[in-house]
Amino acid sequence: MAEQQGLSTHRIEGLTDGIFAFAMTLLVLELQFPDASVASGGQLTFLIFGQMHRLYNFLLSFFLLAIFWVAHNQHYHHIRKTTPLLLWINILLLCSVVLIPFSTSLIGDFESQPLAELIFAGNIFVVGILFLANWAYAARNKLLTDVAFEKGHVFEGIIQNLVTPVVALLVMASIPFIPGWSSYLFFLIPIFLTWRGIVRKRRK
Amino acid sequence: MAEQQGLSTHRIEGLTDGIFAFAMTLLVLELQFPDASVASGGQLTFLIFGQMHRLYNFLLSFFLLAIFWVAHNQHYHHIRKTTPLLLWINILLLCSVVLIPFSTSLIGDFESQPLAELIFAGNIFVVGILFLANWAYAARNKLLTDVAFEKGHVFEGIIQNLVTPVVALLVMASIPFIPGWSSYLFFLIPIFLTWRGIVRKRRK
Amino acid sequence: MAEQQGLSTHRIEGLTDGIFAFAMTLLVLELQFPDASVASGGQLTFLIFGQMHRLYNFLLSFFLLAIFWVAHNQHYHHIRKTTPLLLWINILLLCSVVLIPFSTSLIGDFESQPLAELIFAGNIFVVGILFLANWAYAARNKLLTDVAFEKGHVFEGIIQNLVTPVVALLVMASIPFIPGWSSYLFFLIPIFLTWRGIVRKRRK
Amino acid sequence: MAEQQGLSTHRIEGLTDGIFAFAMTLLVLELQFPDASVASGGQLTFLIFGQMHRLYNFLLSFFLLAIFWVAHNQHYHHIRKTTPLLLWINILLLCSVVLIPFSTSLIGDFESQPLAELIFAGNIFVVGILFLANWAYAARNKLLTDVAFEKGHVFEGIIQNLVTPVVALLVMASIPFIPGWSSYLFFLIPIFLTWRGIVRKRRK
Repeated sequence: MAEQQGLSTHRIEGLTDGIFAFAMTLLVLELQFPDASVASGGQLTFLIFGQMHRLYNFLLSFFLLAIFWVAHNQHYHHIRKTTPLLLWINILLLCSVVLIPFSTSLIGDFESQPLAELIFAGNIFVVGILFLANWAYAARNKLLTDVAFEKGHVFEGIIQNLVTPVVALLVMASIPFIPGWSSYLFFLIPIFLTWRGIVRKRRK
Repeated sequence: MAEQQGLSTHRIEGLTDGIFAFAMTLLVLELQFPDASVASGGQLTFLIFGQMHRLYNFLLSFFLLAIFWVAHNQHYHHIRKTTPLLLWINILLLCSVVLIPFSTSLIGDFESQPLAELIFAGNIFVVGILFLANWAYAARNKLLTDVAFEKGHVFEGIIQNLVTPVVALLVMASIPFIPGWSSYLFFLIPIFLTWRGIVRKRRK
Repeated sequence: MAEQQGLSTHRIEGLTDGIFAFAMTLLVLELQFPDASVASGGQLTFLIFGQMHRLYNFLLSFFLLAIFWVAHNQHYHHIRKTTPLLLWINILLLCSVVLIPFSTSLIGDFESQPLAELIFAGNIFVVGILFLANWAYAARNKLLTDVAFEKGHVFEGIIQNLVTPVVALLVMASIPFIPGWSSYLFFLIPIFLTWRGIVRKRRK
Repeated sequence: MAEQQGLSTHRIEGLTDGIFAFAMTLLVLELQFPDASVASGGQLTFLIFGQMHRLYNFLLSFFLLAIFWVAHNQHYHHIRKTTPLLLWINILLLCSVVLIPFSTSLIGDFESQPLAELIFAGNIFVVGILFLANWAYAARNKLLTDVAFEKGHVFEGIIQNLVTPVVALLVMASIPFIPGWSSYLFFLIPIFLTWRGIVRKRRK
């Protein structure tokens, strides 16, 4: 009923901020101790050490979500308006974001199983690909601001959005070689993005 | 105390975005494995296959919610202001939206029982009827923008809002004939809406 | 560090919408069946009938929350700016709103106990008193728009905000006389507010 | 891809309001009775008295979160724009805020253990330090409004942001001396902030 061509972006920003806020807060439920261990009056120090890998998973997922949220922020800083297709790319993106607390609980509950690691990395890969699709579609269909086109942001955006899917592929490939440790490779994402930021700042 | 005649729509958009974001994220809890199966060190591959129907339910409900959110977006793109009655139609709508994670868990936990399928389809039917009521009321009481009246959006909106309740009725009618498979008919909703979008685009 | 005298109201609206959205969605968790009954393959029809009082509680709490959210909407429609004290009245209000899902679960789990009914009604009473305090404070400190003062909204607001605490007191007083049925008296709130709305509309 | 120098602050406000709203609402889950005690038809009066320390923890955490939210509100009242670094200080802040429901559940489940109290106070300390860093960074990098610089808000902000970490250190230091009671010292935060507010008001 509506030509959504001219649809403003504030609703999609509201839904996205809400979903990221919940997904990031839901992660903390991963840290809760099982009721049984609490009831049996378990020694807290011991319980906490047993949960260290969960704390690591929590921090990993929280900061991946934060990196994605910042990327979303950057995308919509440049996107002037949406089309139905862009809206649906965004919804697919949110669907894969919502799955992150679940795949995080998988690597928490099934610590030693490569399949859990594969599902987690696959989830991050899909999020990354959808961000890339989002940016490429917006650029091709001239939905970006003029400033974005003039200042070379379009190409830079493609490069930055390639980081997540490439690193996720690397993680997946490394699972057979470094079982249980592959997720550390995700730290390449913030390292690369920070380096890229510094390079671009210096150039100006 | 307030004549709400002139009440702006930003608060209702804020509450709605929050409720949709939370409902969409809550769905993922459906995918969690029961604690017992985790504790017994169950084989992950086996567990995941056993949960495939839950993943399907998650995706079905997530995309139905997304379709509803897009519809809400489209409605309030045209609605200039609210009245107390419109506000309450919207609140009834949100009440039925909030029930979707519950009725999704019903079809997950009671996979083979027609009553569960009936409740789920009934829930979607109620959401659809309330969207129709929302649009019809706004149109009758001249709460829409002038553009909406000029461009024939009002009639098109009635047609598009009829899709969900009609398909939900179809699903309910099909339960005795295709028990366990009726929910696949919900895919008629995106198919019809997409076809309608293409038709309208070509006409211009 | 900041004189909050001139603080705008959009942040308090954002936090409030978020908290109402979560509280309203959290209520649905009340409806979930206990894991045990699902595991034992209980008959769904039977389970649902056993949960009817929970569905009633869900609807009661959902619509009380909705009435409060509409009231908040109306208050901040007229409130131009906030002071630190108004901000804290609002935070106390949100604290009592957040407790509603908990006191709803009490009347669900302890169906026949007067203490549970007393806590639920007491919770609603506190929310009502804080709304009254919010409006009275804003009116006394001239934080309302000029329109609100001119059109007699201030006095009308006092009357409307008295409805919830008075009805809640009535409910509490009725517990010894109609144990298990007292909560039906809460329907006096929407009845009175609707009647009041009709009266005011006719007068104009 | 984007120079975030000129990035507006509305998205960070949206994410922050969502996370605070969710964290504040999640706290209420602390109050739920264990399923077992409900099933055994426990006496409600007895159960509630057994939960009194949880109610206290709920109120403590709720109002600490509220104080932090008000502080965030005050900070961003003066912050004109963000930089990538400020964005990430804010994300670290949100990460420590998200952990508060978890550390609150620790002091609820492990009532008598100093380690739980230490983790809770440590969590509050980290939140406080990050608020201080947020304000100091914004002031040093001239991201504040002119009014903030002129009226001495910058220095006042430093003082006010020192309250939380200093009190949290005091709480941690007091654990060996007043085990189980140290958290009462957190009430120094609202006392000091209120006193400071009164002093500044009188001075004008």
